Amino acid sequence: MRSPIRFLVVAAGCAALGLFMTPKKSPADEGMWLFSNPPRAQLKKYGFEPDQKWLDHVRLSSVRFNSGGSGSFVSPTGLVMTNHHVAAHDLDKVSTAEKNYLRDGFLAKNHDDEIKCKGLELNVLTAIKDVTAEVEKAVPAGTAPAEAFKLRTAKIAELEKGAADPAKNVRADVVTLYAGGQYHLYTFKKYTDIRIVFAPEKQAAFFGGDPDNFEYPRFDLDVAFFRVWEDGKPLNTENYLKWSAAGAKADELVLVSGHPGRTNRGNTTDELKYLRDTGYPYLLNRLNRLEVLLGSWGARSEANSQKSEEELFSIQNSRKARIGGLAGLMDPKLMGRKIKDEERLKAFLNGPHDTDTATTTMVNNAKAAFATVAKAEKVRTDLIKDITVLENSAGFNSASFGIARTLVRAAAELPKPNAERLREFADARLPSLKFGLFSDEPIYEDLETLKLADGLQFLAVTLGPDSDLVKKVLAGKSPRERAYDLISGTKVRDPKFRKQVFENIETATKNGGTLDLSVLKDPMLDVAALVDPACRAVRKRFENEVDEPKRQAYSALAKAKFAMDGDKVYPDATFTLRLAFGTVKGYKEDGKDVPAFTTMDGLYARSKEQGNKGPFELPKRWVERKDKLDLKTPYNFVCTADIIGGNSGSPVVNTKGEVVGLIFDGNIQSLVLDFIYDDTIARAVSVDSRAIIESLRKVYDAGALADELTGKK
Amino acid sequence: MRSPIRFLVVAAGCAALGLFMTPKKSPADEGMWLFSNPPRAQLKKYGFEPDQKWLDHVRLSSVRFNSGGSGSFVSPTGLVMTNHHVAAHDLDKVSTAEKNYLRDGFLAKNHDDEIKCKGLELNVLTAIKDVTAEVEKAVPAGTAPAEAFKLRTAKIAELEKGAADPAKNVRADVVTLYAGGQYHLYTFKKYTDIRIVFAPEKQAAFFGGDPDNFEYPRFDLDVAFFRVWEDGKPLNTENYLKWSAAGAKADELVLVSGHPGRTNRGNTTDELKYLRDTGYPYLLNRLNRLEVLLGSWGARSEANSQKSEEELFSIQNSRKARIGGLAGLMDPKLMGRKIKDEERLKAFLNGPHDTDTATTTMVNNAKAAFATVAKAEKVRTDLIKDITVLENSAGFNSASFGIARTLVRAAAELPKPNAERLREFADARLPSLKFGLFSDEPIYEDLETLKLADGLQFLAVTLGPDSDLVKKVLAGKSPRERAYDLISGTKVRDPKFRKQVFENIETATKNGGTLDLSVLKDPMLDVAALVDPACRAVRKRFENEVDEPKRQAYSALAKAKFAMDGDKVYPDATFTLRLAFGTVKGYKEDGKDVPAFTTMDGLYARSKEQGNKGPFELPKRWVERKDKLDLKTPYNFVCTADIIGGNSGSPVVNTKGEVVGLIFDGNIQSLVLDFIYDDTIARAVSVDSRAIIESLRKVYDAGALADELTGKK
Repeated sequence: MRSPIRFLVVAAGCAALGLFMTPKKSPADEGMWLFSNPPRAQLKKYGFEPDQKWLDHVRLSSVRFNSGGSGSFVSPTGLVMTNHHVAAHDLDKVSTAEKNYLRDGFLAKNHDDEIKCKGLELNVLTAIKDVTAEVEKAVPAGTAPAEAFKLRTAKIAELEKGAADPAKNVRADVVTLYAGGQYHLYTFKKYTDIRIVFAPEKQAAFFGGDPDNFEYPRFDLDVAFFRVWEDGKPLNTENYLKWSAAGAKADELVLVSGHPGRTNRGNTTDELKYLRDTGYPYLLNRLNRLEVLLGSWGARSEANSQKSEEELFSIQNSRKARIGGLAGLMDPKLMGRKIKDEERLKAFLNGPHDTDTATTTMVNNAKAAFATVAKAEKVRTDLIKDITVLENSAGFNSASFGIARTLVRAAAELPKPNAERLREFADARLPSLKFGLFSDEPIYEDLETLKLADGLQFLAVTLGPDSDLVKKVLAGKSPRERAYDLISGTKVRDPKFRKQVFENIETATKNGGTLDLSVLKDPMLDVAALVDPACRAVRKRFENEVDEPKRQAYSALAKAKFAMDGDKVYPDATFTLRLAFGTVKGYKEDGKDVPAFTTMDGLYARSKEQGNKGPFELPKRWVERKDKLDLKTPYNFVCTADIIGGNSGSPVVNTKGEVVGLIFDGNIQSLVLDFIYDDTIARAVSVDSRAIIESLRKVYDAGALADELTGKK
Repeated sequence: MRSPIRFLVVAAGCAALGLFMTPKKSPADEGMWLFSNPPRAQLKKYGFEPDQKWLDHVRLSSVRFNSGGSGSFVSPTGLVMTNHHVAAHDLDKVSTAEKNYLRDGFLAKNHDDEIKCKGLELNVLTAIKDVTAEVEKAVPAGTAPAEAFKLRTAKIAELEKGAADPAKNVRADVVTLYAGGQYHLYTFKKYTDIRIVFAPEKQAAFFGGDPDNFEYPRFDLDVAFFRVWEDGKPLNTENYLKWSAAGAKADELVLVSGHPGRTNRGNTTDELKYLRDTGYPYLLNRLNRLEVLLGSWGARSEANSQKSEEELFSIQNSRKARIGGLAGLMDPKLMGRKIKDEERLKAFLNGPHDTDTATTTMVNNAKAAFATVAKAEKVRTDLIKDITVLENSAGFNSASFGIARTLVRAAAELPKPNAERLREFADARLPSLKFGLFSDEPIYEDLETLKLADGLQFLAVTLGPDSDLVKKVLAGKSPRERAYDLISGTKVRDPKFRKQVFENIETATKNGGTLDLSVLKDPMLDVAALVDPACRAVRKRFENEVDEPKRQAYSALAKAKFAMDGDKVYPDATFTLRLAFGTVKGYKEDGKDVPAFTTMDGLYARSKEQGNKGPFELPKRWVERKDKLDLKTPYNFVCTADIIGGNSGSPVVNTKGEVVGLIFDGNIQSLVLDFIYDDTIARAVSVDSRAIIESLRKVYDAGALADELTGKK
């Protein structure tokens, strides 16, 4: 069973921070705003002035899924709406050999029938407090950086502890905004008894599959409903969004309350050019290569296809995302805006300032930061190939190598003091490392051989087949032969074996010694040990010459921007609650108008034109119930709201705070929003609220649920 | 309608010449031997000593398809056997809107029913004469190269003219072997009245499609039958291959008579390393990129799929071929053999020689040649990106740009004297250039925009988005926007428009003037003109610093090799008739035995395991007739014979000269045979003769044809 990836929060690969904005020139609907600092001026232009009650109500009706998405309360008895693809992992976890809820969907007949999720946590943001002054006061001016870090961390921990109340499920996080320009104490109500109420078939939720992923027009019922329970009964709450009877209209103002995961709008133009000219093209080459490798192998047999489809889809998802981002970076108009923004900041830095030490330091640090980033990006260009094939192990592409490396490194790292270890071996991270290492997810020998053979060939081409390291790795064999030898010869795919080895390492460590893995004579462990010095060397250079200087430089730039604009602008996304807004609006592509809405009959037409095959096959229920449906019902729509991965499942509301839609994707042109907002062709894609009701009533026999949503019950 | 590409002769991209061989150490079954110099010693080891009658009979029964494949006479009344994929182009040409013979197959009920092909020519090699002495005598020692070329060309033309007899359909070609070590006068009987007798459905011939292309085990009935007619009736001939009643057995010696197209076994290790480390990986990146681009676009709609499938299949075919070749080059054992061969040649060059001028020149030229090739390969590495995006127009990937460039260059080239033009504009080549230019094959605007947008992005990444040329080409737009503007704005896709422009250029040229295309204000013509100087510059460097020095160097090396080994070895393939041999033998892959034969029940099993979908869907007839078939009938088999593209359709015969099979493919491991022979895992793939008879009788109701083949009629 599979979990879609799509538009969830993606784990951060680099830690670029910072904010971004040109208040005067920004396109109309830009911004992922804090609820404590909403875009009042921008909304006023639309004639909309939300009062505090409106803001509080929408905030308290919004829900964060700790699995990486957004949602909202939509009934007084704790009903929570999100996307099917946000719910996917939870549907998968409660499925059995007989009942595949992810694939086939689910409808609870009554409260007792609702299925309890495993390990799902929902958070509601109950209070926001600006604690910037307190955090800053904890660090006296002139404190050395290491000491400052310690003091700040201690203060934050103290504030969080003071606000949290585990007994009452109250959680508190100090959120760093504007890269340290502000610190906010967020208090959350935490819910852990979450039950599944409804999900459609994956085929309806993700109709069109990868071909239509990130595309528009769309016809997806990407929705699922959970219910929050508390004290053994459905939650009773006043904070829920009412359902709009009318839905949204073209050109209407709509608002999106959700949790955008991460944006990099503070990136300097040097970093953007690195991504445009080197990083993205290089990664796309690799994604293309893997897509062709797995796609053609999968086409060789049904068994192959089943073994590789999850990884293939994840690669296709990444590929589309990068293509969209690269296309945006390639647009001279967008890059031109970034250049202008940077010029404005440079002008600010060159302008007159206070002459106190703090200001002078801020200005000088920020001025120097541009060159620091530029230099780091140059090193990144030099290292991209080595870091990819070695430390990121693309040259040894296989789960078996990953396991072998973990064991080899564990043997070296665990005996070291905690602070000196590679970060993934720090005590705090060991439980999650062990959880992954001991997992008994199936690893397929033939797929491993295929991937490793391709990886070894990639390694050889990258470092040169005649280089010493490659010769040692290949040991006189061709990549394919060597891959077969390594994969068929290693024991690391046996969970018992690796658990035993890891425990032996822990025991040896406890006894003050180390474990020599070479006595195991496992060829994959030997290869992992052989290449480890080279992998560690490039990792160290990357951390010292790229990551760390950039972290400092972006912090300096963010401080300068905050000095320039303050909180007149929104901070970069941090997977905390934000308010975005925009208009329901189509766009032009290749000279053709792409309308804002699709309708239900479009679903049937699209399926028919695609021969009702593969990802375009209509679910049985949708075929049988076609005649009952009002085929003119709006199905999906696009708007200009500023969203990014993590916004999956966000409610789209009208000015009355009523649900008119449900964010589930961005079009491919929206993927540049990672770096810069655009309202010409970038669009957020939503399920229309009317389609949800229509299909619940007429396809899924879920009239009671529809009644609950529309307040008829 | 589509023409499969697969294992036909591929147009030569570079002109590497030369021969290759280490007589002592070569694997047992190596060689594409001349019928005038067969591998007697090698065959004797198998206890087989073919007499001249045997050799003449097989030679005269062999047929060359001028469309790029091989075949053989298999009945006394002119029946010719070849592959369905060799016949594909001819089947396509005689198909109509109602009758799709390529897709659905064809069976002539009687002679009158046979369909005459359009423009198909078959050649039979009737005589071979060594004319080396005559050609060499025509060029006195010490003649300057240009004069020598003239004298040699004149002598060759004289010899060809003397032997040809157009009235009797006798054609004569002087074939250059061993890169000038020998010249042979080949006389051919030419047949031009060729009629289609039988072809199965493409689904049976190419069962498994791209997923199984170049793979084994296989289940393909890749066969077609033509009949040669002469003087209005079927040809009466004694020279045909009889059908073997028993078929081939495992470990049996078999022989292959066919026309291998081109091999590059004379490549120096420097060139092989260039291909391994730079050329193939770079090309594969590009093929992967195009495969993902077209594949994902095709998946978006059935219409897209139809527009792109032919190009997509051609890309997949190339990709597989390169992957196979690269895997071979990556095998240190194969590269080790090439290095040893080169060392043997170098030792020969350093050893004692006659001190006459000719020998000394030969030795010195050959010694210098290694460095020349190495230097050329270095330049090739430097130029690969520029030549790809500019002169090879990957940066403008579209038919529209190709047309625009041809027009722009025609306007510049036609007014020049013939000898000074770019070679494709020489008088002799103009008819074929015009044929292509005026073709009204459909060009799809949306597919053009997709490809050009991707091409422009590739151009920008390759040359840098901030380079002057790229900025001028993109004109301030994103690649996608610019591609849309160019494709929607140009008129060159209208055949009438481009014909008119070309004729205006010809008229202007005749009047001693030139035509200024810029007045047409066509954006694609303008872009083609804008980039032409840069394209020409890189082409010139490539020709002067790569192609020409290598041509001379490989000629010098070939002469040295001929001095070392004479004709104890076979010359590189030249799409002339050769005799290969080998044993019917499986191989080991990933530790598993791949057996030599498949059987008919394997076809049904493979289809079933693939859900009888797409390329694995059984043809209707095969479903209906399953019960009638002897499912244990051998279907396809592999042998170690030394083949390459162009061998498609070659008969596989036993020592009695009887047909036991029909070459139709090589496995993916055989693709390294371009550079070096291998008998460990490289295999030629054939249709078993028994499967042909069984399916003709029981699936196709073609009993009369089966009787004709087996001599029962």
